[in-house]
Amino acid sequence: MSTSEELHPYLHERRALVESALRDAIPSDWSIPAKLREAAEYSLHAGGKRLRPILVLASAESVAGHADDMLMRAMPFAVAVELVHTYSLIHDDLPAMDNDDFRRGRPTNHKVYGEAMAILAGDGLLTHAFYAASRAVEAGVPAARAVKVMGELARLAGLPGMVGGQADDMLGEQGITTLEQLENIHLHKTSDLIVFSLLAGAHAAEASDSQVEALGLFGRNVGLAFQIQDDILDVTGDEAKLGKSVKSDEKQSKVTYPYLIGLEESRRRVKRLTEEAKEAVASAGLADPRMLLEIADYMVGRDH
Amino acid sequence: MSTSEELHPYLHERRALVESALRDAIPSDWSIPAKLREAAEYSLHAGGKRLRPILVLASAESVAGHADDMLMRAMPFAVAVELVHTYSLIHDDLPAMDNDDFRRGRPTNHKVYGEAMAILAGDGLLTHAFYAASRAVEAGVPAARAVKVMGELARLAGLPGMVGGQADDMLGEQGITTLEQLENIHLHKTSDLIVFSLLAGAHAAEASDSQVEALGLFGRNVGLAFQIQDDILDVTGDEAKLGKSVKSDEKQSKVTYPYLIGLEESRRRVKRLTEEAKEAVASAGLADPRMLLEIADYMVGRDH
Repeated sequence: MSTSEELHPYLHERRALVESALRDAIPSDWSIPAKLREAAEYSLHAGGKRLRPILVLASAESVAGHADDMLMRAMPFAVAVELVHTYSLIHDDLPAMDNDDFRRGRPTNHKVYGEAMAILAGDGLLTHAFYAASRAVEAGVPAARAVKVMGELARLAGLPGMVGGQADDMLGEQGITTLEQLENIHLHKTSDLIVFSLLAGAHAAEASDSQVEALGLFGRNVGLAFQIQDDILDVTGDEAKLGKSVKSDEKQSKVTYPYLIGLEESRRRVKRLTEEAKEAVASAGLADPRMLLEIADYMVGRDH
Repeated sequence: MSTSEELHPYLHERRALVESALRDAIPSDWSIPAKLREAAEYSLHAGGKRLRPILVLASAESVAGHADDMLMRAMPFAVAVELVHTYSLIHDDLPAMDNDDFRRGRPTNHKVYGEAMAILAGDGLLTHAFYAASRAVEAGVPAARAVKVMGELARLAGLPGMVGGQADDMLGEQGITTLEQLENIHLHKTSDLIVFSLLAGAHAAEASDSQVEALGLFGRNVGLAFQIQDDILDVTGDEAKLGKSVKSDEKQSKVTYPYLIGLEESRRRVKRLTEEAKEAVASAGLADPRMLLEIADYMVGRDH
């Protein structure tokens, strides 16, 4: 993993901004049953790298340069994508789904608050993502762009997107035999929210159609590379670094990229997809694509 | 129940328009796992009175009069509210929640498709509601109004709204002792989506602030009256007409309005709330509030 000296301070600072925005994401003066609020915030404030919201900000900054008002404009979408990501983890962990007891080293939501409250906390966070996104208008995003982004969130997180990928994964658990099937699951389960992050940042910065397209392609390829890397880490990773049981996929006989095409070919694909992602943004006439290029390397070079 | 000769044809025609829009709600050319699409459509096309979407249309028509283009503008929000209502029924019926095997005389979603698919179908329908609402811009609603409506849907269906009401209901099952607690649950579990329906129609018709407020108040009072009427029907209703087990609330020792204040006082409240609702819209300077006034009587006069 080769990254410049600028990347880590950038990620650190953006993440701090995201954490601050997430703390204010659910208005403190709203009347919400205390247990429900607690369950929602338990998962929302469980840490994590906040990659998706950082990608929203980095995408906006790649288009329009680095300015505080650009971060303000993009932040509602950054919060929205993390709310959606958080809900998806809560519902994925449910007994009827993956039945996981731990997530990021802590008991999963339903282990702490019970299944019913975990379902409702997930429903509430998903719904709230659209409230968060709607705030973009107050932050200066033109209303037509905000509606477009909210529609894209619904599509990419919804039936033809992340939810569809999750259903395919579940339905196919016994029967995945081709790389095409697996790629399709990875694209929807993982890439779609990453694609959304790039599109949302681009629209917040009022990018041109061709810039939106280039950033979307970047998201698709980095997202897929990221998920293949996740498959690789599940075979080779170190348990402490990952904070979950290594080889859990293999134990449950889940089909992964290394299982279907081997470790080396999987690594080659990660590299190729990352290069294609970087080429897409390098030639899109962006104000400053440097951080995006480095984030691409960072995401697929991570060991945790 | 006294309603004019115009109401039933009106409800019949609007319902047919809603059914048609719901059939097209999930684009047929979207790639969605077949079982997931089937599960989502199983519940979406299960019939029902389509009261909420009809209220969206009636609200728009009360503001702007009866014109085809007004129905077109309001329809995306009508579809959105029915998608949210449908998801909420699927999740409410889950084993971890109310654990119901039947809904509208048919097996519940999870009895047919399994728990995991029912959770995902619910998640997908909820998410898709915001895609449906985003289409209002193409139908002629100003983007700023559309964002406002989508934010209101997220608030009224979300943590401080319907999801909060559901959580309160679940948390309070053993401990509700005051009318205030019960009213609070009814307001959020039931009224909030009805309030949304009225607000959405009003915004689709570009209503003034005071009209939006009056229609919201109408929704709040009619929604509460509707839910109290539901409590009353649960004690007095006829099983075949309701399509569910009568007294199921009592069997599960759920606290209802008749349980707390008796049947007669419950009926008086329904009447008073309905009158207040009608007064709010009668004095709001609307183009044609007649159908809304009749729908108020219809909703609380229903015996099924």
